[in-house]
Amino acid sequence: MTAHDNSSLPIGVFDSGVGGLTVLKAIRKALPNENLIYLGDTARLPYGTKSPASIARYATQATAKLLEHDIKMLVVACNTASAVALELLQEQMAPIPVIGVVEPGAMAAINARPGGSHLVLATEATVRLGAYSKAITARDPDAHVREQPCELLVALAEEGWTSGNIADSIVRRYLDDAANDAFIADSIILGCTHFPLLRDTIAAAVGNSVEVVDSAGTTAVVVRDILRARGELAESTEPGTLRLLATDGITRFARVGGQFLGEPLTAEDVHLVDL
Amino acid sequence: MTAHDNSSLPIGVFDSGVGGLTVLKAIRKALPNENLIYLGDTARLPYGTKSPASIARYATQATAKLLEHDIKMLVVACNTASAVALELLQEQMAPIPVIGVVEPGAMAAINARPGGSHLVLATEATVRLGAYSKAITARDPDAHVREQPCELLVALAEEGWTSGNIADSIVRRYLDDAANDAFIADSIILGCTHFPLLRDTIAAAVGNSVEVVDSAGTTAVVVRDILRARGELAESTEPGTLRLLATDGITRFARVGGQFLGEPLTAEDVHLVDL
Repeated sequence: MTAHDNSSLPIGVFDSGVGGLTVLKAIRKALPNENLIYLGDTARLPYGTKSPASIARYATQATAKLLEHDIKMLVVACNTASAVALELLQEQMAPIPVIGVVEPGAMAAINARPGGSHLVLATEATVRLGAYSKAITARDPDAHVREQPCELLVALAEEGWTSGNIADSIVRRYLDDAANDAFIADSIILGCTHFPLLRDTIAAAVGNSVEVVDSAGTTAVVVRDILRARGELAESTEPGTLRLLATDGITRFARVGGQFLGEPLTAEDVHLVDL
Repeated sequence: MTAHDNSSLPIGVFDSGVGGLTVLKAIRKALPNENLIYLGDTARLPYGTKSPASIARYATQATAKLLEHDIKMLVVACNTASAVALELLQEQMAPIPVIGVVEPGAMAAINARPGGSHLVLATEATVRLGAYSKAITARDPDAHVREQPCELLVALAEEGWTSGNIADSIVRRYLDDAANDAFIADSIILGCTHFPLLRDTIAAAVGNSVEVVDSAGTTAVVVRDILRARGELAESTEPGTLRLLATDGITRFARVGGQFLGEPLTAEDVHLVDL
């Protein structure tokens, strides 16, 4: 297949649920002519509290389903799946390029605060693997990294309680838990795709001197750079199509997902698939 | 097989995760000589946000695994699975008796407040099916029932933040959401097995005039009554054995589950099974 043939194929975006729609939103903004297909594995979410073996198995099944749709590139828009299974998925999907969100998030933090002290807010599984610590210190040996598991922030974002007293109290409690010694963060990394919904609350809690970064924008830049290097950017000048797949609960996917995508969705917009 | 043979067999207890350990704890207290085997389907939890079709499939697979251990009775110690799949499981497991936790919870509420107004705190899936409303009004046509989904309370219990300002604020917000008209509850039903951990916080928020009930104690009484009627109560005077199975993350199961069981667990106490 020539580069020209591939350019009209969709980019696949995979997440454990709706959180990856924050990444899809950034890709769509940066590359409005690309066709996109998103799969949320809502039947098995959340990945963040599961074991690496289960996460790897679920991610393999989900990405095999996206492969059936003849994608030209895969974005693993889930920090936990990126931390656990990126290399495995790269092997399985070759020669299709596969990127995760941990490396782009790490690069965003390094660019914002070279040699800085980074606090990563993430799920239990992502923290346990230390994926952000490894990705940052490999590129910036002067950096300091601390990782804080924040499971409740996932439920908070899904419930839509993203501002106000309760969200503020929970964010401050996790920040307090992370700050029990001499570590003073000058960047906060939103290491779960749910957390951009809580960005304002987190930014208010940490104050103006701390940079709050996430993976979404940097991931979109990496997608563009890779497709450009392969000569596979969409050549159409029409707005790209968007196809949404979920493995369970399309009504809930539409209701909660609309908050993440930043536009209303109905159950008719989402297609149920069986893995 | 005679009744005598069955008496030494274990009682199976099934839940989507660790929450059902609150029910197991009550059964063990009421029937200390019974052998118990518990299966938490941690690989697919939580059930509360999933579709009925997925919940029924998961419950069928999990209970088939318990059947391999030659159980004499099955307790579905998960409100969501009880609401969705109890009749299906009763058909599949016959002649082994199968009980859920919704009916015992409904009976506990009716006994506490005959003709009363009951507020059910539960997961999205349990509320969507109206299982408590049906169970209560079928037995007590004068009763009034309102059901409030409370997803964040599940994450709160798992995080172990069961008291203090954050737990109090979240509980009060759900109670406010439920109380937006003339409905004044005189009983609160803890319609998810995670919520007994938040009992003190919930009781403080609603005040002394409101009865807070859960399914655990009543379920244990129903188990005893059924086994007695079948002549299958354990005849041993030794303490019963307890075997814990989980489908994922045994370290996390032990850490979080210990809070629900009310005694410390280590990963060595939990056996990983594949469904």
